[in-house]
Amino acid sequence: MIAVGVIGYGYWGPNLARNFAELETSTLAALSDRSETRLDLARRRYPGCRTYRDHHELLADPAIEAVAIATPVGTHHPITMEALAAGKHVLLAKPMAASAAAAEAMIAEARLRERVLLVDHTFCYTGAVRRIRELIQDGALGDLYYYDSVRVNLGLFQHDVDVVWDLAVHDLAIMNYVLPFRPVEVSATGAGHFDSDRHNLSYVTLFFENNLIAHLHVNWMAPVKVRRTLIGGSRKMIVYDDLEPSDKIKVYDRGIEVSNREQIYSMLVSYRTGDMWAPNLDLTEALQTECRHFVDCIQHGTTPLTGGEAGLEVVRVLEAASRSMKDRGRPVKT
Amino acid sequence: MIAVGVIGYGYWGPNLARNFAELETSTLAALSDRSETRLDLARRRYPGCRTYRDHHELLADPAIEAVAIATPVGTHHPITMEALAAGKHVLLAKPMAASAAAAEAMIAEARLRERVLLVDHTFCYTGAVRRIRELIQDGALGDLYYYDSVRVNLGLFQHDVDVVWDLAVHDLAIMNYVLPFRPVEVSATGAGHFDSDRHNLSYVTLFFENNLIAHLHVNWMAPVKVRRTLIGGSRKMIVYDDLEPSDKIKVYDRGIEVSNREQIYSMLVSYRTGDMWAPNLDLTEALQTECRHFVDCIQHGTTPLTGGEAGLEVVRVLEAASRSMKDRGRPVKT
Amino acid sequence: MIAVGVIGYGYWGPNLARNFAELETSTLAALSDRSETRLDLARRRYPGCRTYRDHHELLADPAIEAVAIATPVGTHHPITMEALAAGKHVLLAKPMAASAAAAEAMIAEARLRERVLLVDHTFCYTGAVRRIRELIQDGALGDLYYYDSVRVNLGLFQHDVDVVWDLAVHDLAIMNYVLPFRPVEVSATGAGHFDSDRHNLSYVTLFFENNLIAHLHVNWMAPVKVRRTLIGGSRKMIVYDDLEPSDKIKVYDRGIEVSNREQIYSMLVSYRTGDMWAPNLDLTEALQTECRHFVDCIQHGTTPLTGGEAGLEVVRVLEAASRSMKDRGRPVKT
Amino acid sequence: MIAVGVIGYGYWGPNLARNFAELETSTLAALSDRSETRLDLARRRYPGCRTYRDHHELLADPAIEAVAIATPVGTHHPITMEALAAGKHVLLAKPMAASAAAAEAMIAEARLRERVLLVDHTFCYTGAVRRIRELIQDGALGDLYYYDSVRVNLGLFQHDVDVVWDLAVHDLAIMNYVLPFRPVEVSATGAGHFDSDRHNLSYVTLFFENNLIAHLHVNWMAPVKVRRTLIGGSRKMIVYDDLEPSDKIKVYDRGIEVSNREQIYSMLVSYRTGDMWAPNLDLTEALQTECRHFVDCIQHGTTPLTGGEAGLEVVRVLEAASRSMKDRGRPVKT
Repeated sequence: MIAVGVIGYGYWGPNLARNFAELETSTLAALSDRSETRLDLARRRYPGCRTYRDHHELLADPAIEAVAIATPVGTHHPITMEALAAGKHVLLAKPMAASAAAAEAMIAEARLRERVLLVDHTFCYTGAVRRIRELIQDGALGDLYYYDSVRVNLGLFQHDVDVVWDLAVHDLAIMNYVLPFRPVEVSATGAGHFDSDRHNLSYVTLFFENNLIAHLHVNWMAPVKVRRTLIGGSRKMIVYDDLEPSDKIKVYDRGIEVSNREQIYSMLVSYRTGDMWAPNLDLTEALQTECRHFVDCIQHGTTPLTGGEAGLEVVRVLEAASRSMKDRGRPVKT
Repeated sequence: MIAVGVIGYGYWGPNLARNFAELETSTLAALSDRSETRLDLARRRYPGCRTYRDHHELLADPAIEAVAIATPVGTHHPITMEALAAGKHVLLAKPMAASAAAAEAMIAEARLRERVLLVDHTFCYTGAVRRIRELIQDGALGDLYYYDSVRVNLGLFQHDVDVVWDLAVHDLAIMNYVLPFRPVEVSATGAGHFDSDRHNLSYVTLFFENNLIAHLHVNWMAPVKVRRTLIGGSRKMIVYDDLEPSDKIKVYDRGIEVSNREQIYSMLVSYRTGDMWAPNLDLTEALQTECRHFVDCIQHGTTPLTGGEAGLEVVRVLEAASRSMKDRGRPVKT
Repeated sequence: MIAVGVIGYGYWGPNLARNFAELETSTLAALSDRSETRLDLARRRYPGCRTYRDHHELLADPAIEAVAIATPVGTHHPITMEALAAGKHVLLAKPMAASAAAAEAMIAEARLRERVLLVDHTFCYTGAVRRIRELIQDGALGDLYYYDSVRVNLGLFQHDVDVVWDLAVHDLAIMNYVLPFRPVEVSATGAGHFDSDRHNLSYVTLFFENNLIAHLHVNWMAPVKVRRTLIGGSRKMIVYDDLEPSDKIKVYDRGIEVSNREQIYSMLVSYRTGDMWAPNLDLTEALQTECRHFVDCIQHGTTPLTGGEAGLEVVRVLEAASRSMKDRGRPVKT
Repeated sequence: MIAVGVIGYGYWGPNLARNFAELETSTLAALSDRSETRLDLARRRYPGCRTYRDHHELLADPAIEAVAIATPVGTHHPITMEALAAGKHVLLAKPMAASAAAAEAMIAEARLRERVLLVDHTFCYTGAVRRIRELIQDGALGDLYYYDSVRVNLGLFQHDVDVVWDLAVHDLAIMNYVLPFRPVEVSATGAGHFDSDRHNLSYVTLFFENNLIAHLHVNWMAPVKVRRTLIGGSRKMIVYDDLEPSDKIKVYDRGIEVSNREQIYSMLVSYRTGDMWAPNLDLTEALQTECRHFVDCIQHGTTPLTGGEAGLEVVRVLEAASRSMKDRGRPVKT
């Protein structure tokens, strides 16, 4: 049994708390939040759990072996460094840090202290994303052509980040997990309609080697919620719609047949339209799988699926996108 | 009764022919196509119609008052110039020309010859797009924030143009018609998976004055067909889904309420979620409305809704997008 | 503060428990269930709550003012009678009873004891159903023509009831609440593929006065989940899709125009197709609204929106449907 | 080359005419319609085709080898008898006749005259329905449990039939083609809101042997168009949505696992949720396939896929449904 403390009981913290409380390999030992109102709520739900307004006190508690941090991005670096220094294993909300430099420092500290550092790239623990990864790794799609994601809704404006750091981070985490390549250049555009320094909608193109291209559309001001990703390959194509109650992944046996490259614009090009197939998916709550995996990594010394390195790679792309967005799409190397 | 000749009886020409044949104010007098097979088909359908393999012969026919040109883009300039010189009125497929210079020459020639030159921006004649224009002009949306379009499918590769000149042209034509502003800068990215010189998927961002931003996603290699546009304003937002059999336009009374700019990131920001409303639309075939309008312009000397100027503006943006795409998103002034 | 005990902690009981626990006007004082495993779960969630394996003990507790009963239908009558005799107010799961006679006895007992008896017709407390009721009461639909509901899924076979008593009961409860008329005759068909005495799919037609007709399609063996109701009137029609995340209700301004009855089959009949409109709905959890209303009725002596009489009317129709179903659709008076 | 005459150029006749005109094995030789306006339209489209206001004249033309009849149901019997007597092969719109007796007379006459009599059960010639038939014949679904169809829209009221004879006939024709069993009893309900003798909405249950049950919901007064069929079997289930542009058929690997019948209501019943699969379908226009098949039957003496017997069986069920509907669902043997 691993005794876990949750730091930050705002929007995401309650989900972490609930999962560590219900897991048979962990206990929810303590909670901290700067708001007394939030702590009141937490105490009603978890009468046996210790609560603190100051996370330093939680970190000073020697009975706590691991912490889950769900605080604003700007605070990730100091809290994580202090937690690692206190010997705690850390599960850290995404994005890992506000800068690559901060992320690198955390990775180094975790290595030095020999502690688990898991970045909460939640989607990587869904049945849907794990299935997509398998399909790509098995070569079912053939050559990869594109990865296109739309993630829009009428969303809460975040206090300390723009829409790219809030929403695109999900897609970058997924791509980092499922794609065998890394982006080499980024072109991003966007607009801040309320605060010119904080974009509320953005379009991000990622260029990869091998002619693979990715694109993310994120928007906090859309009238409808969309969570849809198209992945195109030479042999098959995937539509991943996370809002579908079932059949979240549809695999289309579609493409074009070209005997040789010269013929592509001749009348001999033929389109191939075959069957569609929706694999049955594991519908376990992703965060439950992730929390269980975190505890497992602590108990058996295994390497997290989404560790500091994955978190760092995502932050590097976010930094490049932010730079490009300031110059209206000028390409920036990652 | 206006006697119309149709030049090009491939993919789009048959639709033009059918509409001019059925219109009570026009007759389908002649057809030309370089393929004897296509002419055979045309003769079976229109036994009374003269057919030519050489469009020069059609243009030499003095009984023909107007021509509709549905040939590859590269041929638009010479055929149109010859038609105008022969005194014919011209309805010209989109995009108007392969270059702004060519478009300008055609506009000048039409003005000199005092002939009608209508560019076939078909969507501008749909009930849906006309309704969107009214909603924007009436100020129903409030301040315009964004225009976002997705136009993807498993499509026929065009012989002489890339996907931007083939598909994005529709959205540029619509935007030219419905938006009160003109784009000032373009950033475009894309990929050519079969021919590196011809992109088969592309992402185009358009920057306008007043912080309005537009984005087009076009793709010839998508497993599913999507024709969906989101238009966001400060007071209302539109979802325009052209594949919906009815309810193509949904107007959402959604947005955010901010008392003053400083408060936007405070907890006082409130999201507004009101009713949704789908106006009943005129479902007349757009091309019928357009062909009727073309004949009307000829008979009454009125100015076409989508004349050479509109066609030219669209071509200018296409040129800027092509230049930006070569430099991976570097912004280009229009 | 009303002290509430929940009897039955299986599928539905946890929802009742959670709502009474979180409501500011009630406390969750006790829980009973025959399964020790379920009680264990309950104790982890509500450490301060008393738990019993025998509901008689719970009912003997004088501190409990009201009980919510979520046990199999066959047990509703004895438990409710005992609870009322013990002076408790009762919130009772649907269907109210296995027979009209049993329902009548409960109503009489509640009246005698002057206790609140609320039947848990949950859907009547949703924003969607309340809005439909308003639209019908305001006459927005004109003359009512039909009410058609589909409620199918791959569902859990119930232990003690068939699919009509399990699923159609929802629609009967909604109709009882929103329609100004009562059914006078029922024709029902169905099939029991696993147990010929327990139908797993059924079709129920209800005949009303005024030429209103209703139909329910319920099925435990459908590959997809559907929750869709069409309500047709002479002036407007409603589509109510409970699985839509938003826009659950769409009101269509559609119908036919007939100048006089003789003309209906002549070519002069004209179909009217106007706008569609989706009113914004209150999305509060229905069970929260219902539990709050139950406490309110206890505290202020008001009559429940869905009391014993509503429950009884629903049971009468269920009984008629069961009789008709045995005779393959022979009509049965209600 | 078979010379075909089309009798009736109203709603459906133009589709028959177009297909026989374009088929390489037939010519459209003549057309008849009582309306001069309709004949004018026909002459503009088919300048070489002979036209008659009186179908007797068309039938007297010895050059016509076959006729396609698309007139009101009440006229099917006399026109078909006259056509067969004149030695013509007949393609006859659905429903075949207004009574089983009339249908039997036509079948007898066709046999006597040794002419092809094909009933236009169009859906049986679609790729979707042919695929469903294959899946059922191959045993892919296992034991058949139910066939459930919804066919509703805001439709044109028919002049001479009610909604069952207009819309349910499609489903009866499909069932006759794909199901290995025949219905033995029918229970139907419905309502006529404008003319009490002509129902504008109806619900029809068909009982088969082997515990298979079918249900049809047809409605001319629905605000939205639905064409959706669920077919449930012990091993697999089908959703057939004819309005889907692609993926019209989805095959779900879903069902329940019961080790023995006694266990069904115990907790050991397990639901099986496997993959979904949408087979690629032949999208050729059904009527083209049907017209080609009709010509083929004439030329090679083969038996039509949907001959008089199929048409008769459908009419018998329609008659039973009409009788049941008058008695509010009382079951009627077929």
